[in-house]
Amino acid sequence: MITRAELQKEYEGYKALGLKLDMTRGKPAREQLDIMEPLLGVLSTKDDCIIDGIDCRNYGILDGIPAAKRIFSDILGVPTEKIIVGGNSSLNLMYDTMARAMLSGVVGSDKPWSKYEQISFLCPVPGYDRHFAICEYFGINMIKIPMTSEGPDMNMVEKLVKDDDSIKGIWCVPKYANPSGITYSAETVRRFASLKPKAKDFRVFWDNAYAIHDLSDTPDELPDILSIAAEYGNENMFFEFTSTSKISFPGSGLAAIASSVENIKAITKQLSYQTIGYDKLNQLRHIKLFPDKQSLINHMKLHRAIIKPKFDAVLNEFDRCNIHKLEGVSYTRPNGGYFISLNLPNGCAKRLVKLAADAGLALTAAGATFPYGKDPNDSNLRIAPTFPPLEDIEKAAKVLACCIRLTVAEYEEKFACGADYQK
Amino acid sequence: MITRAELQKEYEGYKALGLKLDMTRGKPAREQLDIMEPLLGVLSTKDDCIIDGIDCRNYGILDGIPAAKRIFSDILGVPTEKIIVGGNSSLNLMYDTMARAMLSGVVGSDKPWSKYEQISFLCPVPGYDRHFAICEYFGINMIKIPMTSEGPDMNMVEKLVKDDDSIKGIWCVPKYANPSGITYSAETVRRFASLKPKAKDFRVFWDNAYAIHDLSDTPDELPDILSIAAEYGNENMFFEFTSTSKISFPGSGLAAIASSVENIKAITKQLSYQTIGYDKLNQLRHIKLFPDKQSLINHMKLHRAIIKPKFDAVLNEFDRCNIHKLEGVSYTRPNGGYFISLNLPNGCAKRLVKLAADAGLALTAAGATFPYGKDPNDSNLRIAPTFPPLEDIEKAAKVLACCIRLTVAEYEEKFACGADYQK
Repeated sequence: MITRAELQKEYEGYKALGLKLDMTRGKPAREQLDIMEPLLGVLSTKDDCIIDGIDCRNYGILDGIPAAKRIFSDILGVPTEKIIVGGNSSLNLMYDTMARAMLSGVVGSDKPWSKYEQISFLCPVPGYDRHFAICEYFGINMIKIPMTSEGPDMNMVEKLVKDDDSIKGIWCVPKYANPSGITYSAETVRRFASLKPKAKDFRVFWDNAYAIHDLSDTPDELPDILSIAAEYGNENMFFEFTSTSKISFPGSGLAAIASSVENIKAITKQLSYQTIGYDKLNQLRHIKLFPDKQSLINHMKLHRAIIKPKFDAVLNEFDRCNIHKLEGVSYTRPNGGYFISLNLPNGCAKRLVKLAADAGLALTAAGATFPYGKDPNDSNLRIAPTFPPLEDIEKAAKVLACCIRLTVAEYEEKFACGADYQK
Repeated sequence: MITRAELQKEYEGYKALGLKLDMTRGKPAREQLDIMEPLLGVLSTKDDCIIDGIDCRNYGILDGIPAAKRIFSDILGVPTEKIIVGGNSSLNLMYDTMARAMLSGVVGSDKPWSKYEQISFLCPVPGYDRHFAICEYFGINMIKIPMTSEGPDMNMVEKLVKDDDSIKGIWCVPKYANPSGITYSAETVRRFASLKPKAKDFRVFWDNAYAIHDLSDTPDELPDILSIAAEYGNENMFFEFTSTSKISFPGSGLAAIASSVENIKAITKQLSYQTIGYDKLNQLRHIKLFPDKQSLINHMKLHRAIIKPKFDAVLNEFDRCNIHKLEGVSYTRPNGGYFISLNLPNGCAKRLVKLAADAGLALTAAGATFPYGKDPNDSNLRIAPTFPPLEDIEKAAKVLACCIRLTVAEYEEKFACGADYQK
């Protein structure tokens, strides 16, 4: 067992190296972008631009060309008539869906959400900062729901929505959740599908961002929420989102929304006011590169080959340093997605971020995984190992493991002295 | 002079041909898309994707890459710090700008527009149907403003906005207006710039869709509204929009918003909640093809060479048939843009559309150029000659000229008999 002094010395050693490492965001690495090079030139002549009789170079088609819907049908396991292919950003689709509900309500609702004095959303925590930011922007109250190993605490969800019709929705990342990496269990999915909220305009924002982003030979399975919800007459309650942001190019990929046929019709009607349509040429590029499901699966294996070693580098270093044996410390070993979720003793997250920053390792800000950026326990951190090159991640893992041990050692010292470290 | 019987015979002759001609929308023709073929393959290797140190394949940059702002700076004559490059659809930017004002208000406003009992927009008529549709979607009352040869009736605009603070904005297509083709005079622009509306959250939606879409060697000149408005401390009052929809590919081009630096900052802040950013690879494609202003100008000449003969075909046929000498009939000879505006005696527009349809020529629906699709005089039609091949336009022009004369002849017969044709 390493001593406190040795730990401090190791830390000072890292500081002296003048490192500049960045694990702040879940961005694909350059090698992941490089494997998409064929997408760039896949359309080169005017004849390439016609598919199924559609000239993708001109106006027309609001909800995505049929072949592009097929890609998302493959990704989500949802029939094409329940899919709209829309733009380059699923966040934008989520924001628009929220804005639409705020301004015009949802199918079957009495009035727009903005006409209520105050509405609330349930926010499983830790969660995705950009989800919470949308609520913050629209002034929607956020109610934190603890995450369990099977998904959000469904007892709490069911109880809250049953009695309070000011609760209008919940954010979910059902597969390889951001940041915990867990996938909702079949029971959790069924409990969502059969939810009986008091508010008839309650909506689940089902952000299936990592639907096929596996890191394992035994990937997690997520049942199709829409077909199960249909069993309970609840299909209108679900807006499912996904994108190719971490399949093709982030920001230059395709995003999609899937929902009941009734919701899709209503959204398409509203879209006719909003836009002349999405970029069909970019849809066509993706179709050419991913002509069938197998081509998508093969491609995701290439991503896995690049990022899995980075996850392993972090987790192996954590194991080597017995991080999991530290009192109050735990972390996830995700089967997919883009994050490792790290839990520390209360009051330690900000300190760890500071120690790491001082040693040249930028981590996601403490609190980012909570509404308003405020983690009440100051204990959770999102570790994002995908973007830096593997050799940087190997260095970063050492710095991180050292900083975790140092943070906990400091914590234990203060605790032993009776100091209130959380303040 | 052709007799009534000869006219009817000519019309029956067209009907017998079983034509199928479409002049319904202002879409670019296939030849116009073909000249953009080089855009398709302009990025082909990973190294092509880096510009100014920015890897356009990954996340990052919300408001457009600097070089793409330069394109719009060239198009609009507005400095880059007043520009956001956003997505593939300026209609989407307009809708989003309206939605933002509805949900959050504008810079300096007391409350969001949606919090008012009722707000109104001024709508110069005839105008663009999709502008009016946005107002309709948001439940915004529309007040019609007649168009003059110098732009909207500014006496009426000034009077209305001075006294009524429920009037929150106006739609403008200041250059080669849709559909009249006229460009606002320097005086009109200055009167807009110096407007003193009672509502401090009054906003001008300045849709400069046809900024460089000239059809003449002596193109119209539109002064830069933002710099003139700045003289009057009114720069925040203007949201200017444009796109490359009719420069590169409709639906796969770039759109932009230009406004005061203060507005641009506020919009960028809001965008940070809405999207992870727009498609930078598509921005980069455009930069490569239009590296400077001259390349844009040269390109627009190619468009002109394709569509000018189509405008001429219609106007020459109208001249040949002395359409302009018919009582109550007038039409525009635009120096640019995508439309000819045709005015008929009151009550004749729907009849003309019907006659044309029966002879195999689809025209834009009568009323489309007015709020709610209702032209109170049933007298204006938007003629869109760009999309069909020239030989079709030549046929269509003959059918159209014949139908106009027949419509007017019918009108005069009924008028002579004392019938009320408008009913």
